[in-house]
Amino acid sequence: MKRYSVSQLEEQSKIILRAMGSSEADSVIISNVLIAAELRGISSHGMIRLRDYYGLWSAGRLNTAPKITIKHEAPGTALLDGDNSLGMLSGVKAMRLAIEKAAQCGTGWVSVSNSNHYGIAGYYSMMALSEDMIGISMTNANPLVSPTFSTSRMMGTNPIAVAIPASEEPPFVADFATTPIARGKLDIMASQGKSVPHGFVQDSVGIPSNDPSVITRGGSIVPLGSDYEHGSHKGYCLGAIVDIFSALLSGAGFGPFVMPQVSYLTPKEGAKALGHFFGAMRIDAFRPAEAFKSDMDHWIRTFRGATVAEGYKEVLIPGDPERRNTIINQQKGILLLETAKEAIRSICKEQSLKFILQ
Amino acid sequence: MKRYSVSQLEEQSKIILRAMGSSEADSVIISNVLIAAELRGISSHGMIRLRDYYGLWSAGRLNTAPKITIKHEAPGTALLDGDNSLGMLSGVKAMRLAIEKAAQCGTGWVSVSNSNHYGIAGYYSMMALSEDMIGISMTNANPLVSPTFSTSRMMGTNPIAVAIPASEEPPFVADFATTPIARGKLDIMASQGKSVPHGFVQDSVGIPSNDPSVITRGGSIVPLGSDYEHGSHKGYCLGAIVDIFSALLSGAGFGPFVMPQVSYLTPKEGAKALGHFFGAMRIDAFRPAEAFKSDMDHWIRTFRGATVAEGYKEVLIPGDPERRNTIINQQKGILLLETAKEAIRSICKEQSLKFILQ
Repeated sequence: MKRYSVSQLEEQSKIILRAMGSSEADSVIISNVLIAAELRGISSHGMIRLRDYYGLWSAGRLNTAPKITIKHEAPGTALLDGDNSLGMLSGVKAMRLAIEKAAQCGTGWVSVSNSNHYGIAGYYSMMALSEDMIGISMTNANPLVSPTFSTSRMMGTNPIAVAIPASEEPPFVADFATTPIARGKLDIMASQGKSVPHGFVQDSVGIPSNDPSVITRGGSIVPLGSDYEHGSHKGYCLGAIVDIFSALLSGAGFGPFVMPQVSYLTPKEGAKALGHFFGAMRIDAFRPAEAFKSDMDHWIRTFRGATVAEGYKEVLIPGDPERRNTIINQQKGILLLETAKEAIRSICKEQSLKFILQ
Repeated sequence: MKRYSVSQLEEQSKIILRAMGSSEADSVIISNVLIAAELRGISSHGMIRLRDYYGLWSAGRLNTAPKITIKHEAPGTALLDGDNSLGMLSGVKAMRLAIEKAAQCGTGWVSVSNSNHYGIAGYYSMMALSEDMIGISMTNANPLVSPTFSTSRMMGTNPIAVAIPASEEPPFVADFATTPIARGKLDIMASQGKSVPHGFVQDSVGIPSNDPSVITRGGSIVPLGSDYEHGSHKGYCLGAIVDIFSALLSGAGFGPFVMPQVSYLTPKEGAKALGHFFGAMRIDAFRPAEAFKSDMDHWIRTFRGATVAEGYKEVLIPGDPERRNTIINQQKGILLLETAKEAIRSICKEQSLKFILQ
């Protein structure tokens, strides 16, 4: 299979985004986030998303020439209005603002309303690393997840990302959905006719199911923890916290009232664009950054040195798998999902654009 | 079984704490946190803890006449040194400081080093509610939990609490360990000779176990998610974030280097007192508090109104069970654990103190 360079992907992505009305600068920002996902091996959040963004734009549901504005501010906080653009644009702006505010107050926190899909949560949290700050990023999303004891799809897979700098060791980067499995993986298993273990999905009356396609027939994804006995109410708490910080601190659509991020789903009555929440914490607002980062090296080495369980190879630090993928993909080039390539080919044909991913 | 009033428990708790050298004011603060746990039905974090605190104090491992000092400050942040006291003392002080700083900057964040067990995490987060702020509290703890793919006990059950005010509805209060089960519950099941389902504990080589007593024979608790397939690496991320925020932002003992919170465990070489992390976010630093709280009412009613899964009675909002317990316990009085009563009786006998929980 063919591998592509970062610059090839960027060129292709920009061609499509420019055709959708994005400015040169905006199309670079959006492409950077998609390509960061590809590099990190999270192809479900990479180039394939151009298909959904193009669909939303074609349906008139996405503003590609937004005016993103600050609606409210305190010394250490702000609220941004994303003007119904892609979340990368408000996300990068919000995170930069959080970092600026952290430089002044010690920490900075920015909520965003009126936004859409923002790609990988980790991209924004990692922006804080070079400033000797901890970065935090979260977003709400399409409702697919039922609270414990319920069958209603009330929450998205609502991810949280936290990036923490170290000194000699690479940074700690956690970036995870608050569910046992991502929607994208379920789709792949459903399309292959595979079954899944209990603890990922339930059917329309709440019975655990092995069938990943059950979520297209009234079923839902369960929160992290899988069932009440194993603590799914804790996963429900986490998903709810992400929903409230992202949507209620910004005035965005919450829970079941999030605008679908794909054009083939009809918005629920009362649905609004989604929200995000970003934070930056300056390390030396608490203690000297060098002492902290040297302790982080010690933390990372201690955890990496933990005894390995039978049948496994090593103990990982959050961010290790994505860092390794990045090294491989930078050296060898990026393998695209076939579905991503086909979707991009079809957009290019429809819009008479240059298709360079031959 | 006999039930006790809040004032009876407070009197008894103060008698013991005063005998351990606590000031009148400090013994009130510590008792309040223990009794809040009893009221909320979390007896594992209530009066029974006096046994452990007394044990630590008797072993010379707890400072009951601390000078808690601010070691570093920025406009929106601070670092406190707990002077090896119980965590309630630094916790209440840290949370008040976070609230003050949030009044100025929009948010306030305080890390605490050189501390000990602080009771229920939710107590501190709820202090923000009356100020129209969101309260956040977390702590690291005795190492009992293995990272995914490991058998080493590297983390505590590291809880997170988030309290969010509403208007007509009661507040949202999430307070949960980042593991499928609490240590206290495992102990109770082990003492009754009961087995537990897979997904709570593993043996000394990492094989899932049904025996809750396995953690006394080299086994460990697994992170929330239970196994890698069901996302235990996400629970590991969460526990690690709590550890780093609590201990590395403060310079406290991290992961396996946390001082044991019971006197019968010998400290590991290099162990230090533990750490906490607190935050307060002023709602109207983002958007008007009344609009937010009215949206919270809508959020709570929407989630409460979700369809109930087969076999269950209702969909709960985080904080509902503890709020109901509080109402019952305030009306009828508090039922104490027999082990708590016996431990208190024995301390009173040993120290020739008045035992009032006859």
